[in-house]
Amino acid sequence: MAIWDQEDHKDLPLYQRLYGYIRREIEQGKLKAGDKLPSVRQMAKEYEISRNTVETAYLQLLEEGYLISKQKSGYYVEHLQPDWFERKGSERGKAEQSEEPQEKQQDKQQDKQQACSPDKQGIERPTYDFIYGETDRDAFPYQEWRSCVQEAIRWEETEGGTYDNNVFGELELREQFADYLYRARGITCQPDEIIIGSGTQQLLMVLCQTIGKDKPVLGMEEPGYDRIRYVFQNHGCQVVPITLDTEGMRVNELMKSNAQLAYVTPSHQYPYGMVMPIQRRMQIIEWAKQTGGMIIEDDYDSEYRYVGKPIPALKGLDEEGAIIYMGTCSKLLLPSLRISYMVVPHQVIRENKQAFRQYLQTVPRFLQIALALFMKKGEWDRHIRRMRTRTKKKHQLLIQALQNELGEKIEIIGSEAGLHLLVQVKTKDTENELIQKALAHGVKVYSIQSYRTKPTESSYPVCLLGFGAMPLDRIEEACGALGRAWG
Amino acid sequence: MAIWDQEDHKDLPLYQRLYGYIRREIEQGKLKAGDKLPSVRQMAKEYEISRNTVETAYLQLLEEGYLISKQKSGYYVEHLQPDWFERKGSERGKAEQSEEPQEKQQDKQQDKQQACSPDKQGIERPTYDFIYGETDRDAFPYQEWRSCVQEAIRWEETEGGTYDNNVFGELELREQFADYLYRARGITCQPDEIIIGSGTQQLLMVLCQTIGKDKPVLGMEEPGYDRIRYVFQNHGCQVVPITLDTEGMRVNELMKSNAQLAYVTPSHQYPYGMVMPIQRRMQIIEWAKQTGGMIIEDDYDSEYRYVGKPIPALKGLDEEGAIIYMGTCSKLLLPSLRISYMVVPHQVIRENKQAFRQYLQTVPRFLQIALALFMKKGEWDRHIRRMRTRTKKKHQLLIQALQNELGEKIEIIGSEAGLHLLVQVKTKDTENELIQKALAHGVKVYSIQSYRTKPTESSYPVCLLGFGAMPLDRIEEACGALGRAWG
Repeated sequence: MAIWDQEDHKDLPLYQRLYGYIRREIEQGKLKAGDKLPSVRQMAKEYEISRNTVETAYLQLLEEGYLISKQKSGYYVEHLQPDWFERKGSERGKAEQSEEPQEKQQDKQQDKQQACSPDKQGIERPTYDFIYGETDRDAFPYQEWRSCVQEAIRWEETEGGTYDNNVFGELELREQFADYLYRARGITCQPDEIIIGSGTQQLLMVLCQTIGKDKPVLGMEEPGYDRIRYVFQNHGCQVVPITLDTEGMRVNELMKSNAQLAYVTPSHQYPYGMVMPIQRRMQIIEWAKQTGGMIIEDDYDSEYRYVGKPIPALKGLDEEGAIIYMGTCSKLLLPSLRISYMVVPHQVIRENKQAFRQYLQTVPRFLQIALALFMKKGEWDRHIRRMRTRTKKKHQLLIQALQNELGEKIEIIGSEAGLHLLVQVKTKDTENELIQKALAHGVKVYSIQSYRTKPTESSYPVCLLGFGAMPLDRIEEACGALGRAWG
Repeated sequence: MAIWDQEDHKDLPLYQRLYGYIRREIEQGKLKAGDKLPSVRQMAKEYEISRNTVETAYLQLLEEGYLISKQKSGYYVEHLQPDWFERKGSERGKAEQSEEPQEKQQDKQQDKQQACSPDKQGIERPTYDFIYGETDRDAFPYQEWRSCVQEAIRWEETEGGTYDNNVFGELELREQFADYLYRARGITCQPDEIIIGSGTQQLLMVLCQTIGKDKPVLGMEEPGYDRIRYVFQNHGCQVVPITLDTEGMRVNELMKSNAQLAYVTPSHQYPYGMVMPIQRRMQIIEWAKQTGGMIIEDDYDSEYRYVGKPIPALKGLDEEGAIIYMGTCSKLLLPSLRISYMVVPHQVIRENKQAFRQYLQTVPRFLQIALALFMKKGEWDRHIRRMRTRTKKKHQLLIQALQNELGEKIEIIGSEAGLHLLVQVKTKDTENELIQKALAHGVKVYSIQSYRTKPTESSYPVCLLGFGAMPLDRIEEACGALGRAWG
């Protein structure tokens, strides 16, 4: 009888029990970073189980980022960020507002949402679709999710209370988000500063109709996400495009505009992908201080970062209460769940409480509870680890394959983070011609024209490739086809 | 071996099999309206089962409206509307636009939603709460609902398609709504005229930001639901209050205003409860024709009607494509599900297609599929029958108990339909004093002041009593307490 067999989950398959045992050993620090695990053969022999069982358990741990595999050497325990496991009793509220919070895991999600793709009607489905905004459904733990949903519906059935709390969202879920933001994004906030909503657009509508009524001029990154721009424009706001340099939004331009609101994506500019460095961050905060303006930080895909240290959210630097932070579950879980949230500074909530309370909550109650359970059980964190591992592999392979196929002909832009990158092609073709040529070879890539308010300047054309939903084993074929299309 | 025991559902409890058997006999017309069922004792003896089993099955059929019980006589088959069972192959599209469509079941739902209650913070929970907007959770078929949700999540897991359709909502659900509206509300529409959203407020936001941009003046019933008014006002629309007479909105006043949009609740004015008669309906349609205006019909609680014939929706008379119809699941299922829908005439969709497509769908995909399954399986229709039976009982008892306790002292207003009524008290007390006195006796009743834009004229004060979530067996006690408070 193996030690991991004495656990209480007798009904689980053997490999899951082994997986769970090793995971706990790592989380509790009994297995340490760098420790080598017994080989599959040794393990199988020692515990008299099949090699298949051991291999399945190891692969799951590998996927979720607990282990790393070194070729011809074996499996080792990965270096884990300890704060991932200090969920209970974390000292939220005491966190320093440093620029580089202690190696916080770079996690995040946001709402470019599923439908970044233009109308697809009348077009045959391409063989390879680099659509942006979809996630990797194979990686989603549907079984655990279903059980959380079931538990939540049972909760709703038996819980006899009223709906006191639910204008801003269920307290349980807001607590989970506050805890996550502290651990992963360096943000210190209270649950009552969090408002839950059915996607970033819906939350922005509420913002436009509450605080936005007095702030009708918005500075927005140019290019920037069109569905965000529409919301502001449709509310009668004037949207002033602010151009980018390599550090993101040019705050000098913002200073000269008469904007009272600024919309930025500092962790990973959409669509260009630059990360805003600390000097620029201080500068935009300074803008808010000087003008009394508000910053809306859209932190839509911060879970995924591939180069260098994790960068905390801009909101982590917010001492004046001048930043509204937008997060989403669309990039991490499934875009079709329609859950986003925003952190609104206390004072802003206080001053606009009546206005905020005019709007009923839009996310189904049981769904909020299901997600809170999912987070409480550690499935959220586990999923982030798994997604990060999978996505990193795809990201590396995609860049390598693009370079192999197209080499000097292209430049890859904004690939340090996120679920998409831009490819600039050194060609006389127009962007549209590139897209059509790719499509003729069965590959769908996307235009970024709708993200601009003005036509692009004359430089080489750029296409957007999303890889969140692209299966790992199709990336090389897809790039091969692109090579033939554009080569 | 009884005939109903030869069914395929061997795993169901005995009473459910008996229930299912009798239900099918009724639906298939083998048991006819007025037929008497064997007594509980006879049935138990004949099939050698316990009386309890028979009684449980009969009670469920009674609850769902398949049977009626006559005192000291027994159980009889209720007169059913045949179109309830002609769900498949209905001739939608051919329906005549008559004023009184063939005895259509008066069904409906809409979005006064849960939080009609003012802030309840700091107030002890009252013993009896006549809150409006909550539904009777005990009646909700949680078991069937859970199984639909599970099926929907499995569907999402295996279905590999993209999100093509989901800006307006899942086609499956829009088909179900179109079918229901045809059967139950006399509305002929196509699924592609239906837009699904997370509540009436959210759908109105989309309307305001698409078609509403050119129609900034709204005529709205005075009094009317405040959360609707806020949405229009927060979009910069001018809201012109149009007063009521006994037939609903005074269309003469509307004619004299410069409104381009009119917001009405013709099936059951909120909060006053009058039903708009056919002459007035023709008049408001005439207004739209003459001025080129659009009517927004909010059909929020039409499932529940207690007096006279069912009245079809105003939208059923819409030959010019001038009516936008708003429906909701909040009154019928659970307000916490956050599912509503609107029917937008073809031409309006065509002219504003780009604008509508700027907004991502806000209702989770699996939830839409779960509801479509719930409807396909007949659970929706069954639930309507059950709710109608339960609500009718409560409604009768409430009116009777109020009259017993307060008699000449009160007048009951707007009680022909819906889940609430108004009580006007002949007293020198103010409305607030009445509410406080009731609260002192443990009864919470509600003010309608927030529904007015101007202070009420000097007449007797009025309170709102919602009974959707009030248990049947507490109504008499609650009215007794009200009698002591106001008597």
